[in-house]
Amino acid sequence: MCSQEPSSTYHDGRQLRSTSHHEWRNALNSAAHLLPDLQTRISQMPNLKLLDIGCGSGTISVSLAKYMPDGHLTAIDQSPTILERAKIHAEEEGVKNITHLEGDAYNLPFEDGQFDVVHSSMLLAHLSHPVLALKEMIRVTRKQGGVISLREPDLKAWSFYPSLEGIGEFSRVQCLVHELNGGHVDAAQRLVTWLFQTGQVEREMIKSSVSGWCYSTPEERRMWGNVMIGACEGGGMKERALRDGIVTETELDVMKKDWETWICAEDGWFGCLIGEALVFL
Amino acid sequence: MCSQEPSSTYHDGRQLRSTSHHEWRNALNSAAHLLPDLQTRISQMPNLKLLDIGCGSGTISVSLAKYMPDGHLTAIDQSPTILERAKIHAEEEGVKNITHLEGDAYNLPFEDGQFDVVHSSMLLAHLSHPVLALKEMIRVTRKQGGVISLREPDLKAWSFYPSLEGIGEFSRVQCLVHELNGGHVDAAQRLVTWLFQTGQVEREMIKSSVSGWCYSTPEERRMWGNVMIGACEGGGMKERALRDGIVTETELDVMKKDWETWICAEDGWFGCLIGEALVFL
Repeated sequence: MCSQEPSSTYHDGRQLRSTSHHEWRNALNSAAHLLPDLQTRISQMPNLKLLDIGCGSGTISVSLAKYMPDGHLTAIDQSPTILERAKIHAEEEGVKNITHLEGDAYNLPFEDGQFDVVHSSMLLAHLSHPVLALKEMIRVTRKQGGVISLREPDLKAWSFYPSLEGIGEFSRVQCLVHELNGGHVDAAQRLVTWLFQTGQVEREMIKSSVSGWCYSTPEERRMWGNVMIGACEGGGMKERALRDGIVTETELDVMKKDWETWICAEDGWFGCLIGEALVFL
Repeated sequence: MCSQEPSSTYHDGRQLRSTSHHEWRNALNSAAHLLPDLQTRISQMPNLKLLDIGCGSGTISVSLAKYMPDGHLTAIDQSPTILERAKIHAEEEGVKNITHLEGDAYNLPFEDGQFDVVHSSMLLAHLSHPVLALKEMIRVTRKQGGVISLREPDLKAWSFYPSLEGIGEFSRVQCLVHELNGGHVDAAQRLVTWLFQTGQVEREMIKSSVSGWCYSTPEERRMWGNVMIGACEGGGMKERALRDGIVTETELDVMKKDWETWICAEDGWFGCLIGEALVFL
């Protein structure tokens, strides 16, 4: 018998289902491309200042802050609700070298060159004007020595087993809604060109890489599958897709059922491709 | 002005163009999922025995062998021609703890449980009977302590910029020919289910992960793009695709031209998704 419920903590609705994946994220599974460089910097400059833009529920921020006990991390997000959650998480983890601020990626409330490291993860894909946000990131990063760390998905490069039609359809609908909302499904492959469009970055300043997320154990499948099921049951994607006639309730039911099948498939597997860049200013 | 030639060493044809990417591979860019476990093993058992199946031109083998100076690495491949190249590479690198053998993945010329670590990379995707090969890997791996390391592509999960039609078409043709040849384009996502099909592996014995390859610098674009151009000019893929009416010479010319454009695009980017598994016996 397969249980799709992640744990008793997450029984109370869609919002927390989605949050359960966001809160699984940490520096090792979501910022590994930055860690070697960051650790070298910390050894040379223990009091460095790091900015995490679009921190969400703040688990990556807290995880990064732990690497730099004598430094300071500023975490910003535009949502006061999620920032409250991020603050509670930092307190629970006993992390004190962190400040949470409400802020807009297009208009960062900071002086020029104020940060040694500027980090963002899964942010630009959601923005209508990623180049504008990158210009702001560059502005607040210390010149001649600072680094910007980016990590963005290719939403079309989903890989999964078993090959269930409802999951393929879910991915298609997710991509359409993402684009209707002004986002970019191909942020991974556009990082370099967006950086060029700022007019301030040359190829030699960029270190590109790829990584991914993989969900395969029963716990990982429950976590990821329940986020997907939550999106079939309600929330922004469902509302927009129904409103714009991209999907019907019946089709959403098929998607939900296939995600349930995937969670329960002992050989279920999911991988997605994520593009990364370190930009050395 | 953009030069598509990788370097004067690689001017002499298709075969070497393709080899230039194979020889770029090493333990860090092509077996990173194994390295932490391998290094722990080496510290506990310096004289461990590692088998690399389908070693090709042997750059990953040599790179792994350097991590285990007191251990021994056996590298096998079914092609005597490529093994000669692998031997020369090991000699050039001064690596002596390595033996190269001609061998068949379906019928490994070894005793049961002879190896502490069994590694293969980009092998199962090319086999008609991956489960048979996995059974052989399991047979020659030491029980109660040995590990098998697998790394296989999802050939459909290619991500690239600029979005050139000829590259998309190339990918489609490559996948079709790969399947006509009896291979699997979705080996990444099938690793867990194939392991189950051996009847000897349970979920808890498997550690799944994903990673990828990324080509973005001018050198990387020349290396990868020239392999792709080589495949449009001649070799197995082109022959099969023409013979089976999958592609025309004119279409191949468009693909080649688009790869040339990609090599020369300063913001050109390529990422691909690779599935990994460590199997603890």
